[in-house]
Amino acid sequence: MGSVSSLQVGIIGLGNVGRGTLRILADNASSIERKLGCRLEVTAICSRSVGAKPPPEADRFPNALRTANWREVVENPDVQIVAELVGGTSVAAEITEAAIAQGKPFVTANKELMAERGAEIWAAAAARGIGFAMEASVAGGIPIHTVLRDGISGDRIQALIGILNGTCNYILTEMERRGEKFETILAEAQELGYAEADPSADIDGYDARSKLALLAGLSFGVRVRPADIFVEGIRRIQPMDFAYARRLGHTVRLIATAERGPDGLLLAVRPALVRADAILAHVQGSYNAIWVRGAHGADTFYYGRGAGPAPTGVAVVSDLIRLARELSSQATKRFSPFAHTDLDSHSAISIQEQVRPHYLRFRVRDRPGIIAELASILSAAGISLDAVFQEPSYHKQDLPFVITTEPTPGGAVQQAVEKMKGLDFLVEDPLALPLETGLEG
Amino acid sequence: MGSVSSLQVGIIGLGNVGRGTLRILADNASSIERKLGCRLEVTAICSRSVGAKPPPEADRFPNALRTANWREVVENPDVQIVAELVGGTSVAAEITEAAIAQGKPFVTANKELMAERGAEIWAAAAARGIGFAMEASVAGGIPIHTVLRDGISGDRIQALIGILNGTCNYILTEMERRGEKFETILAEAQELGYAEADPSADIDGYDARSKLALLAGLSFGVRVRPADIFVEGIRRIQPMDFAYARRLGHTVRLIATAERGPDGLLLAVRPALVRADAILAHVQGSYNAIWVRGAHGADTFYYGRGAGPAPTGVAVVSDLIRLARELSSQATKRFSPFAHTDLDSHSAISIQEQVRPHYLRFRVRDRPGIIAELASILSAAGISLDAVFQEPSYHKQDLPFVITTEPTPGGAVQQAVEKMKGLDFLVEDPLALPLETGLEG
Repeated sequence: MGSVSSLQVGIIGLGNVGRGTLRILADNASSIERKLGCRLEVTAICSRSVGAKPPPEADRFPNALRTANWREVVENPDVQIVAELVGGTSVAAEITEAAIAQGKPFVTANKELMAERGAEIWAAAAARGIGFAMEASVAGGIPIHTVLRDGISGDRIQALIGILNGTCNYILTEMERRGEKFETILAEAQELGYAEADPSADIDGYDARSKLALLAGLSFGVRVRPADIFVEGIRRIQPMDFAYARRLGHTVRLIATAERGPDGLLLAVRPALVRADAILAHVQGSYNAIWVRGAHGADTFYYGRGAGPAPTGVAVVSDLIRLARELSSQATKRFSPFAHTDLDSHSAISIQEQVRPHYLRFRVRDRPGIIAELASILSAAGISLDAVFQEPSYHKQDLPFVITTEPTPGGAVQQAVEKMKGLDFLVEDPLALPLETGLEG
Repeated sequence: MGSVSSLQVGIIGLGNVGRGTLRILADNASSIERKLGCRLEVTAICSRSVGAKPPPEADRFPNALRTANWREVVENPDVQIVAELVGGTSVAAEITEAAIAQGKPFVTANKELMAERGAEIWAAAAARGIGFAMEASVAGGIPIHTVLRDGISGDRIQALIGILNGTCNYILTEMERRGEKFETILAEAQELGYAEADPSADIDGYDARSKLALLAGLSFGVRVRPADIFVEGIRRIQPMDFAYARRLGHTVRLIATAERGPDGLLLAVRPALVRADAILAHVQGSYNAIWVRGAHGADTFYYGRGAGPAPTGVAVVSDLIRLARELSSQATKRFSPFAHTDLDSHSAISIQEQVRPHYLRFRVRDRPGIIAELASILSAAGISLDAVFQEPSYHKQDLPFVITTEPTPGGAVQQAVEKMKGLDFLVEDPLALPLETGLEG
């Protein structure tokens, strides 16, 4: 290819991420040219709204082809790098397949597609000698993909513990800060646009689960499907849980965990108690954060915005620069970030086998003998108590209290909670949360 | 080159970093092979102690050539990638020059060499079409180089704020936690091996300054020499400063700042007050951390061990994997991470022009009129007071108190402090620290 003066990019999708990407490509054009030694030009833009008034970001590339047909971008002979920035997994998969067939490297911001099929798409691309990049597909503002692929590639990852959903973290930290109920904060977050009208994907943990599947695949080189991961959302967390957690020197966060143990890989997304002096406990509002423990490199921690047009757009543009460098360097071989498949650590272990101290929170109609009854169920399940806490309350008909346990397998706790359900004095089912012990602090 | 079954590495230097690197190369050999598709083999090892009993890490590569002459490694026809892991800048520079002359990519862990001459060495290497890698040269356990070079390359960095010296951070956080004097903690740190017998490079800020010069060069693409950076160490910080800082909702850390302003680049290493709710304030002990603000990507934060054989060894091995991938990919062109030189932002601006609230701490022999006298000096310098604090004390001969100012240029504060020096009631010169306002929280 020799010395080129520009590389041509085609953008497919003009949602928030696409528009953020165009804005950054326009604003940072000269800084990108200095880094690359050539310009990155937008040659073609595809959006469904091509007939409508174009967004102002598209107007900054007046010479770009405008089309509603993505094939006119991917198959355009001038386009050298494709940015796939549409949602869903069906059209997105077709775009990546077409780009591979055309021998064109591509960027994708598609979390679901990468979580479901990232490893096989990488294998197909690498076999054709082309690369792709997917930094924007998870925790947009944190370059975790680059870190796992390059920055700490010399280490073997032992555990990855993350706050991967900004909506949940916003709701939890607001509950903690203001003592308001989950339902109140969720309604506010919906009004402010921080939560969707149908919030289930976020607050029930499914979004974090897709991200964890992808990060676990990159960390351990194993195929992890989102459906294989235990998931529990934050709907049952109440302000009182923060009060009790504080008495225990902890706070509550929605934690995504991938951890390599002697018997396999533990994967879970669920609310957990985190030590107040762990740096992960200081992640406020809609920020994301990821704690990584390596076999040799001790612990590292990464923090930034999880979403938003600008942080995600930076990830897309950084990926475009990566692919442009690869093209300019005339490299003929690519390395899949999923390629380190570790056959002996494939087996997933259930959270039932995970041994942790647990937090059990009860709401009861007060009468004598309650603690004795609960303690005997726990004792019968082989669970040792660590502490019993009760905040002062005048509500004898809805009295909260908390029991913490010694390290106990999750399965024993689940069984004990099952036995407790339906006890006449319970206002609601007991809430059981693990204490996240994998963190420094 | 086609499909190769192994790439040959030569290691120069068997200090802590060299031994950590060998240990990781041996322990992680199969995981590295899966990532690369070929083995990374150690073919030659150079250390001055070659005649003596070899360290156990070297024994794990029994077939490697052992030599005390580094040229036998660099010029060895079997060696394809060189790891320069010696200290100092003279021999290290010769090694890098020889590697470039041989057309062999190399890894360096040499902070001083990269801070002083990184950009020119990169230019020479890239002109020969070879790459080198220097992740281990700054904040060993944090892959900040990869982040700046690849992960967020699409953004323009506006500010980088770091805790870059683990010894200082250990001393400061121990002073904060236990209320002990600087001298006591320093002596302990020296006993524990956390501080050198001659601690000046660490506690007077010079080590952090070299690291900042390098990171500023990578962030802004400008040539920054360590000697150009304002530096002030932590010798004058006392437990009372943590008590006052706490009353102000802050803590004290040695902060390295590189910040792009409208008039140029502000560079400084000095103790500063950091808001207690900023995530940087939660960095404890010997950890390092770096806060990066981009023009588009909002804020990101990176945290890990700053030094140690294992974290630094991970950085070296990750760099070896990077170079091995480049070799295997048959790429013929390399991109200097310093290449985005931004001519219009070259000018360094002095901390005298930096406008910040300031913390002024005094120790006085009590008598009437002191505050009036100090306030009139501040007023004459055009400095507005924000607050005056005094902790209870029976020591009327050595009474501490604190004045905080409204945002004020550093130069005005320096002038006022100069005028105060020698006032008869002062037990020691006033201590002036900026409040670091560039952080979220």
